[in-house]
Amino acid sequence: MSFEKLDTLNHTLHALTHAMAILGADESTNMPTGGGEARAEALSTLAAMEHEKASAPEIADWIDTAQNQDLSVDQAAGLAEFKRLYQQRTCLPAEFVGRKTKSAMMCEQAWRGLRARGDWNSLAPLLSEVIDFAREEAQMRADATGLAPYDALIDQYDPGSRMAEIDPIFAQVKSFLKSFLPEALETQKQRHGKRPLKPLNGPFPIEKQRALGHAAMQQVGFDFSHGRLDTSHHPFCGGVPTDIRMTTRYQTDTFLPGLMGILHETGHAQYEQGLPRASAHWPHNLARGMGIHESQSLFVEMQINRSPMFWKWAMPQVDKHLGTHVFEGWEIEDVLAHVNLIEAGFIRVDADEVTYPLHVIMRYEMEQDLISGAMQVKDIPEAWNAKIQDYLDLSTRDNMPDGPMQDVHWPAGLFGYFPSYTLGAMMAAQQWAALVKEIPDAPEQIETGDYSAINAWRSKNIWQQGSRLSTPDLMKSATGEALNPDYFIAHLKKRYGEE
Amino acid sequence: MSFEKLDTLNHTLHALTHAMAILGADESTNMPTGGGEARAEALSTLAAMEHEKASAPEIADWIDTAQNQDLSVDQAAGLAEFKRLYQQRTCLPAEFVGRKTKSAMMCEQAWRGLRARGDWNSLAPLLSEVIDFAREEAQMRADATGLAPYDALIDQYDPGSRMAEIDPIFAQVKSFLKSFLPEALETQKQRHGKRPLKPLNGPFPIEKQRALGHAAMQQVGFDFSHGRLDTSHHPFCGGVPTDIRMTTRYQTDTFLPGLMGILHETGHAQYEQGLPRASAHWPHNLARGMGIHESQSLFVEMQINRSPMFWKWAMPQVDKHLGTHVFEGWEIEDVLAHVNLIEAGFIRVDADEVTYPLHVIMRYEMEQDLISGAMQVKDIPEAWNAKIQDYLDLSTRDNMPDGPMQDVHWPAGLFGYFPSYTLGAMMAAQQWAALVKEIPDAPEQIETGDYSAINAWRSKNIWQQGSRLSTPDLMKSATGEALNPDYFIAHLKKRYGEE
Repeated sequence: MSFEKLDTLNHTLHALTHAMAILGADESTNMPTGGGEARAEALSTLAAMEHEKASAPEIADWIDTAQNQDLSVDQAAGLAEFKRLYQQRTCLPAEFVGRKTKSAMMCEQAWRGLRARGDWNSLAPLLSEVIDFAREEAQMRADATGLAPYDALIDQYDPGSRMAEIDPIFAQVKSFLKSFLPEALETQKQRHGKRPLKPLNGPFPIEKQRALGHAAMQQVGFDFSHGRLDTSHHPFCGGVPTDIRMTTRYQTDTFLPGLMGILHETGHAQYEQGLPRASAHWPHNLARGMGIHESQSLFVEMQINRSPMFWKWAMPQVDKHLGTHVFEGWEIEDVLAHVNLIEAGFIRVDADEVTYPLHVIMRYEMEQDLISGAMQVKDIPEAWNAKIQDYLDLSTRDNMPDGPMQDVHWPAGLFGYFPSYTLGAMMAAQQWAALVKEIPDAPEQIETGDYSAINAWRSKNIWQQGSRLSTPDLMKSATGEALNPDYFIAHLKKRYGEE
Repeated sequence: MSFEKLDTLNHTLHALTHAMAILGADESTNMPTGGGEARAEALSTLAAMEHEKASAPEIADWIDTAQNQDLSVDQAAGLAEFKRLYQQRTCLPAEFVGRKTKSAMMCEQAWRGLRARGDWNSLAPLLSEVIDFAREEAQMRADATGLAPYDALIDQYDPGSRMAEIDPIFAQVKSFLKSFLPEALETQKQRHGKRPLKPLNGPFPIEKQRALGHAAMQQVGFDFSHGRLDTSHHPFCGGVPTDIRMTTRYQTDTFLPGLMGILHETGHAQYEQGLPRASAHWPHNLARGMGIHESQSLFVEMQINRSPMFWKWAMPQVDKHLGTHVFEGWEIEDVLAHVNLIEAGFIRVDADEVTYPLHVIMRYEMEQDLISGAMQVKDIPEAWNAKIQDYLDLSTRDNMPDGPMQDVHWPAGLFGYFPSYTLGAMMAAQQWAALVKEIPDAPEQIETGDYSAINAWRSKNIWQQGSRLSTPDLMKSATGEALNPDYFIAHLKKRYGEE
């Protein structure tokens, strides 16, 4: 019975994934330094084992035969998603994957050292090789899927998302932001003139910040019986749906970035914790992709936690956990001025929600040209500088660390990934708008810390859908319409525009 | 090349073992409760994968062929140990292992509930089944190895240890202890009369106990770059040699059992951390067995940490970490009176080093009869009561929880394991005697906290030997003679006898 063979295989793959997820989280939170070498060896052996099992040639026959078995709707959905993943796993020759992986590993490792020195010239030849591989990979994936080459790369991260859909959306957002950003900065300046930014009364002991973070996670809906919060240098949300390993890091001179970081990861965690539990070893019960995942973290962080409705509940929590002196004499507007500060900056990961899309869009535009061959590595610095001048009025001439050397994605060979960040931000705004249409008093519920109806909506429309639908179809099913940037634009206008 | 195939296989098995060890430690220290079901499923899938890979039929040919390859001495040692393990893994039919495992799991699960109620009658039929399987297993292992059935069980835990060697040793120790224990109790009573036991001035905050534990671990030689200390309900030493996961638990009204527990596990940890690092994926570089392992923990705990030489160093540490009020007015004799307290009790795991061997020996004697068929499950309560009356002057009539229902071993189907505990205690005494012959000022070194020469001796003679020798041969190689209970007896006389 072919379906049963696939079921057993999925159990095996699921166990290996479970092991790698927990070992990975453990490595970042608990492992002593001397354990690294043996851990890396164990992880790479497990990954090779998983790849070998998941891409075995006989699986193609099992899939074909299983398609003719009498399957339930749910089983058929599992089989369809498994087939899609199998095609993705097997459409590249193993020896190509080996060469590509080695090239990217060498480039990424070199980048870690060269970045700080801004040594673009030493990075360029390595990056050229990585991009050559990416072009070749895109073409092979295109041949296997019938998609355009760059679409075939995007499809790995956001199944179903296409340039034909993204291009006009990004064009509209870019055009809006280029005029809106100067206005919003001016509006912010005037607000600060009328209501000066209050300094934060630190220090904020880590233990107290952790207690505040726990309280906020719990309230928003993190399930502590299926997850925990630890500390790591780079915050992440790892683990498995039944055992989420979330991390944050704390500064002691401010608590707001830490708290926002915790709540961002809580959004990711809720998605994983909320996935279907039955047949969890089949891939249609996994999270849909990077865009939807980011929509869940940004839904919590941007739509909820940086809004006045959230702070109505949260200010007394700060009093309780950090002490009443912290917000003595503050009004909600004083907190919002901190958490919604905007600034045109060089670095994508430090960007606020107004400027972030411009960082993503410039990378998206350049990736299209890099994959098509219209742009070469030698052209990147000038193209980067031209775009950041145009979009953010900044110059990265002779400043490679703050320019095209800032991100790990290209050295690591990750092309087609960047758009997910901004697609996720727009999805979050659209989801919130759809939710409020169904639950008009959602804002008041948030003010009282009641997330039951909100999470029930998210569970039904997003989490419980797993990977049954493509990213665009999931958005249509959840919100009633295709991805529409108007919601995101309206959100930014409301939060950062003139009153 | 067959050896190379085995090398690759051992890398794979090593990665799976690594994953299971860390997942297991994580489960006891970090995992949220709701993660248990999926974790258990992942672990059992990984274990099945490991078993399948490690016992594949084609391996027999690889071993045969590899034996004719031109191998180094080290490679040949690895191959020999791998062959031994392969024989152990494959000498039972898979369907038998399945039925046996299920029977033991059911019995162990039932035991967890029945034990508290002392419901022997409900346990007995399940335990009978488990023992039937153990008899059958012993016979199959005997047929495969040429050993006597019970020896074949012991051999899984202590390769090379045989009843022919153990019987006279245990007879001598039993005979000694039956007369020595009443004397030692009387001696203790007189000492307490002259120097009353001082009460401990608690409470002892957990954070401070942890700091003291860390200081002691570090001094004794635990390598914190390759391991860590956490808290769990049942203390253990898990993880992998490059990343040891040790746990303890703390009481706040006393710190001595916690500290002794930490140091006991430190002894286990040092063994694992000290194993050969080269070719760590081959089994001849694993720890030899349960007896030698216990010798390492008891070497630290019994030979060193419950002795005056250790407390000369440790008393100022208590002052430093717990406060000078704790030992105010105490002399070393006052501490020793606490850590070397003896008492005839019902429970093996709570026993001191004088009474512990009697608990083990009565189980060893009964196991021999249970496996041979001379004793049935229905005979256990009376036999138990008779032995504990004879050896410890206690009665467990109508007291099953404190009698034959106290240990997990039999319900879990672990026969042949118990002797390791006491063999380990005797090995530790003999190792210490051999070490002092070579390093006469070892006691003075311990007084100053200097373990460099002591650990170098242990590393060379025990840890770096891995599994190259059988348990008895390892003892001969390390100490110059076969296991000799005189050292253990002399140790007890010196510590607990009349001055």
